[in-house]
Amino acid sequence: MNEFDLIRRFFNRPPADGTVRLGVGDDAAVVTTTPGHELLLAIDTMVEGRHFFADAPPATLGHKILAVNLSDMAAMGAVPRWALLSGSLPDNDPAWLAAFSDGLFALAECHGVSLVGGDTVHGPRSFTLAIAGEAPAGAALTRAGAQPDDDIWVSGTLGEAALALAAMQHQIALDPLLLPVLRARLEMPEPRVGLGLKLRGLAHAALDVSDGLIGDLGHILTASGVGAEIELSRLPCHPALKALLDGASRPLALQCLLAGGDDYELCFTAPPAARKTLVALSRELMLPLTRIGAITAAPRLIVLDEQRQALPTLPAAYNHFPNR
Amino acid sequence: MNEFDLIRRFFNRPPADGTVRLGVGDDAAVVTTTPGHELLLAIDTMVEGRHFFADAPPATLGHKILAVNLSDMAAMGAVPRWALLSGSLPDNDPAWLAAFSDGLFALAECHGVSLVGGDTVHGPRSFTLAIAGEAPAGAALTRAGAQPDDDIWVSGTLGEAALALAAMQHQIALDPLLLPVLRARLEMPEPRVGLGLKLRGLAHAALDVSDGLIGDLGHILTASGVGAEIELSRLPCHPALKALLDGASRPLALQCLLAGGDDYELCFTAPPAARKTLVALSRELMLPLTRIGAITAAPRLIVLDEQRQALPTLPAAYNHFPNR
Repeated sequence: MNEFDLIRRFFNRPPADGTVRLGVGDDAAVVTTTPGHELLLAIDTMVEGRHFFADAPPATLGHKILAVNLSDMAAMGAVPRWALLSGSLPDNDPAWLAAFSDGLFALAECHGVSLVGGDTVHGPRSFTLAIAGEAPAGAALTRAGAQPDDDIWVSGTLGEAALALAAMQHQIALDPLLLPVLRARLEMPEPRVGLGLKLRGLAHAALDVSDGLIGDLGHILTASGVGAEIELSRLPCHPALKALLDGASRPLALQCLLAGGDDYELCFTAPPAARKTLVALSRELMLPLTRIGAITAAPRLIVLDEQRQALPTLPAAYNHFPNR
Repeated sequence: MNEFDLIRRFFNRPPADGTVRLGVGDDAAVVTTTPGHELLLAIDTMVEGRHFFADAPPATLGHKILAVNLSDMAAMGAVPRWALLSGSLPDNDPAWLAAFSDGLFALAECHGVSLVGGDTVHGPRSFTLAIAGEAPAGAALTRAGAQPDDDIWVSGTLGEAALALAAMQHQIALDPLLLPVLRARLEMPEPRVGLGLKLRGLAHAALDVSDGLIGDLGHILTASGVGAEIELSRLPCHPALKALLDGASRPLALQCLLAGGDDYELCFTAPPAARKTLVALSRELMLPLTRIGAITAAPRLIVLDEQRQALPTLPAAYNHFPNR
């Protein structure tokens, strides 16, 4: 099977809607944008050995490379619409590709996203997906709008993906019945697209937690020129992770919760006047929304422990190029 | 230097125009599209050892990863506008990155393209760039419009990049004064964006020659349900390549001309009535436009040699996954 057969067989599926005038198979796709809307653009890459294990189920990789990009759209309050996929592959194993593309398209169909183009090259296994979405002009959420006294919220729970990774790397032993649950958080993250759309006009600033809460919240603080105080005891997490916080594995639990990465939850700030609306929204979406602290005028990030004492040191955020 | 410093230092430059409301540094870029226009989307990847040598000058790689995407926009008759770059890098060598980004931005500025986002990961060296462009609704050129009796045209010259590669791989010995000229065609291709824009409303079908003339023209024929007859003696090429056609290296010369790849010239079809306009356009753009044959109703591709005999076999197009 050559490159063109391969694309046709696995990645050329009917578009999600009538916005796609020309999809996979020409030099570029041609799509129709929505009048009065701005265009949102993002890109993310996953490399074998760095972002996933060589033996990861291919359907989860197809899911995840799209999920992490949808999460970027969610963080901006945008409707994701069109995706471009580039895959570097060591071989053209049809069964592997079939599973990968099934995983990708299952999620794409959930969100009405059309894969409109791509590229396949021979090389070490990695995937790059670029996404284009839309939001009404001026409505997109950014990192720059946080104001002192805003509440800080996060969706869902934090730290489970990092805890799963720690268990898979034998840094900690977990109940074998628990591991699949946590591992699903690592391998099949659910992008919070619906939440992002509802946060338009409600949140002052937002982003998705992909590199760990501390580091990502830090981006909001820097962009907005403010600080924050958050409370460890308020951070929403799985009971198993909560239990670890009280034992010998507390350092690992702190690392997972505060700097674990791969959460793909939204972190956002909103004025206290929005609390009631957000509680109702949480019920409507059946998604926990938890107030974890507040924005401060002083530009520093403080994490209060269970005794309301500031943690003296904070775990470092994930960095692809550690200082040498 | 961590990932964020690295992005800020080398890749966060002022946008090319006022369409960029929010560039590098948030979860996604926010840009303003042009009313009445369609959006064009494409993506391309270059992997070390496959698309470039490990010791390739970094500025040429920055140039080329953008150039190959601009060439896709050119082939569609689109104005390129916004780019997203993902780089997988084995290290964060600042001198290397500075040269790479200089090469990329030099070309971006020529074409008014803004780099609005990206991703950096640690891994084997490779680059993926996604491009978004615009064309008036309905004006984009596709591969599907070729009609019997259309002339077939190509811009510039063919086969020089492939000949340079053959020389660099010691498959052939060339005049040492010639190699740098040919090598520039391989490493610093000039995307034919200006030509693409002028071909709107003039060409019936178009694409860029990236995988070799035969294979790429084949895409036009398949998409349009037609055939073609082209003449070897009409194919525009460097005198050095022409000379090889008459000697012992004829097989290599044919391979370079017909299936060499990396040309990034436009191949397009147009009715004979457009000949005068295209000759004038060639002069205006100071770019050779050469009529190499004609579209036929019979759906097959014939290449006539210098004696007007059909070549019995055609060189194979480049395939990233050869049949096993």
